[in-house]
Amino acid sequence: MSGKNILYAQSGGVTPVINATACGVIETARAETEVGNVLAAKDGILGVLDEQLIDTSAMTTQQVAGLRHTPGGIFGSCRYKLKSIEDSRAEYERLIEVFKAHNIGHFFYNGGGDSADTAYKVSQIGEQLGFPVQCIGIPKTIDNDLPITDVCPGFPSVAKYVAVSIMEASLDVMSMASSSTKVFILEVMGRHAGWIAAAGGLAARNAGEAPQIILFPEVAFDLQAFLQRVDNVVKQSGYCSIVVSEGVRDAGGKFLSDSGVRDAFGHAQLGGVAPVVANLIKAELGHKCHWAVSDYLQRSARHIASRVDVEQAYAVGKAAVEFTAAGKTGVMPIIERLSDDPYQWQIAEAELGKLANIEKTVPASFISEDGFHITDACRGYLSPLIQGEDYPPYGSDGLPQYVTVKHKMAPPKLDSWCE
Amino acid sequence: MSGKNILYAQSGGVTPVINATACGVIETARAETEVGNVLAAKDGILGVLDEQLIDTSAMTTQQVAGLRHTPGGIFGSCRYKLKSIEDSRAEYERLIEVFKAHNIGHFFYNGGGDSADTAYKVSQIGEQLGFPVQCIGIPKTIDNDLPITDVCPGFPSVAKYVAVSIMEASLDVMSMASSSTKVFILEVMGRHAGWIAAAGGLAARNAGEAPQIILFPEVAFDLQAFLQRVDNVVKQSGYCSIVVSEGVRDAGGKFLSDSGVRDAFGHAQLGGVAPVVANLIKAELGHKCHWAVSDYLQRSARHIASRVDVEQAYAVGKAAVEFTAAGKTGVMPIIERLSDDPYQWQIAEAELGKLANIEKTVPASFISEDGFHITDACRGYLSPLIQGEDYPPYGSDGLPQYVTVKHKMAPPKLDSWCE
Repeated sequence: MSGKNILYAQSGGVTPVINATACGVIETARAETEVGNVLAAKDGILGVLDEQLIDTSAMTTQQVAGLRHTPGGIFGSCRYKLKSIEDSRAEYERLIEVFKAHNIGHFFYNGGGDSADTAYKVSQIGEQLGFPVQCIGIPKTIDNDLPITDVCPGFPSVAKYVAVSIMEASLDVMSMASSSTKVFILEVMGRHAGWIAAAGGLAARNAGEAPQIILFPEVAFDLQAFLQRVDNVVKQSGYCSIVVSEGVRDAGGKFLSDSGVRDAFGHAQLGGVAPVVANLIKAELGHKCHWAVSDYLQRSARHIASRVDVEQAYAVGKAAVEFTAAGKTGVMPIIERLSDDPYQWQIAEAELGKLANIEKTVPASFISEDGFHITDACRGYLSPLIQGEDYPPYGSDGLPQYVTVKHKMAPPKLDSWCE
Repeated sequence: MSGKNILYAQSGGVTPVINATACGVIETARAETEVGNVLAAKDGILGVLDEQLIDTSAMTTQQVAGLRHTPGGIFGSCRYKLKSIEDSRAEYERLIEVFKAHNIGHFFYNGGGDSADTAYKVSQIGEQLGFPVQCIGIPKTIDNDLPITDVCPGFPSVAKYVAVSIMEASLDVMSMASSSTKVFILEVMGRHAGWIAAAGGLAARNAGEAPQIILFPEVAFDLQAFLQRVDNVVKQSGYCSIVVSEGVRDAGGKFLSDSGVRDAFGHAQLGGVAPVVANLIKAELGHKCHWAVSDYLQRSARHIASRVDVEQAYAVGKAAVEFTAAGKTGVMPIIERLSDDPYQWQIAEAELGKLANIEKTVPASFISEDGFHITDACRGYLSPLIQGEDYPPYGSDGLPQYVTVKHKMAPPKLDSWCE
C-alpha cells in the first residue's frame, strides 16, 4: 500500500446495498497499491466536519466481506447538505483541513444528486485552496432519479421488494374479496419520481393482473377517474390491488398526504398517503380496504435483494478506487446498459457537474395513456434490474447473519470544530 | 381411489402457508385408497352453502405441488361465522344437503378457533340429521392463538417476516439517527394476542439490541412509562426501534387506534396504531419518527417463510387425510413439541370441542417485568419456529413462480340457495 488515503462517506437515506458498495471500495483498495488506507466518515459528511473518522484497516477480512450482504449504512449516514461555497466557506475549508490532517488524497461520496453536487464542490475548493483532492461520486439512491446512469444502485432491490410484496399481498386480497376486503393499497417511497411505484407494475405480468392501478407522482391525481377505475376493476376482477407513491399530488401540486413536516434538505416529510386513499375508496365506493406502508422496510429488505443490484453496487465501489488510482477526479462511475435481454451492462463514467441537482423522473413513454399503469417500454427497462436473488446467510436461529462492527476511530489530530 | 369424497375449505385470513396445507391434503388424498376425490369449497364455507365446489382432480400434479410455495388462499377464503345450530338451522341443513349431493364423507375446515367451532357443530348436525360426516379441523392462524397445539401453522412464517424486517429496518434507523430519524415503529397484526409482536423481539439477540421496545395487547399501554422508555433508549443507543401490535389498548381497554369499523365476525377492524404512536413521540419528545404498517405483507410474505412452518403446514394437511381414513372425526391434527434444541415435533390430535372459542394469549412469563420485551422463556419457545428458509422458485424475470389455477367447478346438483 502506498499513496494517499481514501475517505469514504455515506450520504442520505441508506439502501439494502450501500454496504455492498463500501465492500467494493475497501476490498479493492486493500488490493490496490496506488492508494493508502480507507478511512470512513462516521455519519457521513458530518463525521468529516467533526473529524470522526473510522479506521477500516481494523476491520477483518470477514467483516468487510460481510458488508456485501448487510443492509443499513455500516458507518452511519446523514441528511446534511452543504450550501454553496460562498455561503459555507468555513465548512469547505474545514473539510480540506481534515483531509490534510489525515493525508486524504481521495474523497468518495456515496449518495444521490445532492451528494454528487457536494463532491463536485469539494473538488473545486480543494483546487482553490491548493490542496487538490480527487473527488469521486458513487451513485446510490433508491429513488433512481440520477440522470445519465442506467440505474442507481439501491433501486433494483427496492423494486424487487415492492414487486414481490404486491404480488403476494394481491394473492391475499384476491382470496378474501368475496366476503371481506376488496381493495389493498401499498404505499411506497418516491418523493418526486415514481420509479419505485412503477416497479410494482412488474407483478402484473399479464394485462388485468394485480396490481391493477399504480399512482405516480408524475401524474396529477384525478379523484373521479381513480374511483371509476377502482369500481371497474372490482366489478371485473372482484378485487383491486393498488400501489401508491408517497409523492402523489393533485392537479394543484398539493401532496395527497402532506404532514407539513420537512426534512433537513427542506423536502416535505411524507408518509401516510395509503390511509388517505383507503378512506376515499371506503367513503365513495363502500369497499372494505386494507393498506400497508412499507417505509423503511422497503429500503432495508436485504433478504430479498436483487442480485443485479448487489453486483452493480459492488462494482461502482470497485470502480471508484480504480478511477482514482488512474488519476481521475470530479467523476462518478455509472451503469451503462448494453442490452435488455439478456441484460448486459458495464461501468462507464460521468462528470459530477452533469449529474448534480437533476432529478430523472419516470418519462411519459413509461406510463400508460390512462396514467394508471406502466407500458411495455417501462417493463423492458425495469425487468432486467430485479433479476436474480442474492440471499444473505442465515444463522441456526433462523435470522440473517448481518455484520455488526465495533468501529476503531482514527485518533483526532485537530481541535474540535463548531461552525 | 374409493370411499366418499373429501370437502376441503379455507377459512378466515389467509397465511403464507395455508396452500401448503391444501397441498398436503390433496397429495395425500390422491395416494390414499380409503377416500375419494377432494372437492374444495370456493371462498370457504360460503362456497359450500352456494354449492360452488372446485374439482381438484382437474389440477395437474405440478399445480398441486406448486401450492406448497404459493401464498394466499388458492380456493378463496371467507369471513363468515355460522351461528349456533338453533339460530342457523337452515344453514346447517343446507351444508348436509350439499354433502349428500356430492357424496361428501369427510369435511376439512382449515382455519382458527371459529372454524374449529364450525367443524365441531357440523359434526354434531350430521349425526342429528342421520348423515354422519367425518369432520376434521385443520389449524391455521397467524395469530397463534389456538390452545393445546404448540403452534398454529402460518404463525412461524409471519414471525420470521417480522423478526427479519425489524432487524433490517433497525439497521436503517441506526444509520440515520445522528442527523435525522431517531425512532422507527413497525405495526404488526394480532388483535388480542401479541404473538406476532413478540416475534419481533427475536431480532434483539442480545440485551439492548433493537427492537428495544415491544408493545403487546396483553399489556395496558402506559403513555408516561412508554415515553420514558423511548427517551432512555434514544439517550443510550442514539435511536429506538419499536414493534407495536395493532391490538394495543389503554388501561380502560380502548384500542389505541380504534377506527370504529367492525369485520364480519364482529371484531373491531384495526390498523394505523403506528402513526398514533409516532405522533405521540414526536409531540412529547420531539424525535423524528418513521413508521411502517405491514398489514397483508406480513401474512403473505411466502418469500421469507419459515421452513419449519412450511413443513408443519403440509404435515397437518397430510394428517387430516390420515385421520379421516382411520375413521376419526371431531378432531384436529396439532403440533406437539418434543424438544426445544434441537426443535423436534410430531403430529398429535386434539378434540375440536376443546379448541373452539379459546384464545391463547402471550402468558405473563413470556413478557419482561417492565412489559416492554420478551423473556428468555419466550425466546426459547419462539426461536425454533422461525428456523430454516424455504424459498419459492423464481422465474428468469426475477419474480416468484407462484401457482395460479383456472379452477374446474363441480357441476351443481341442487337448486340455488338463499337463506
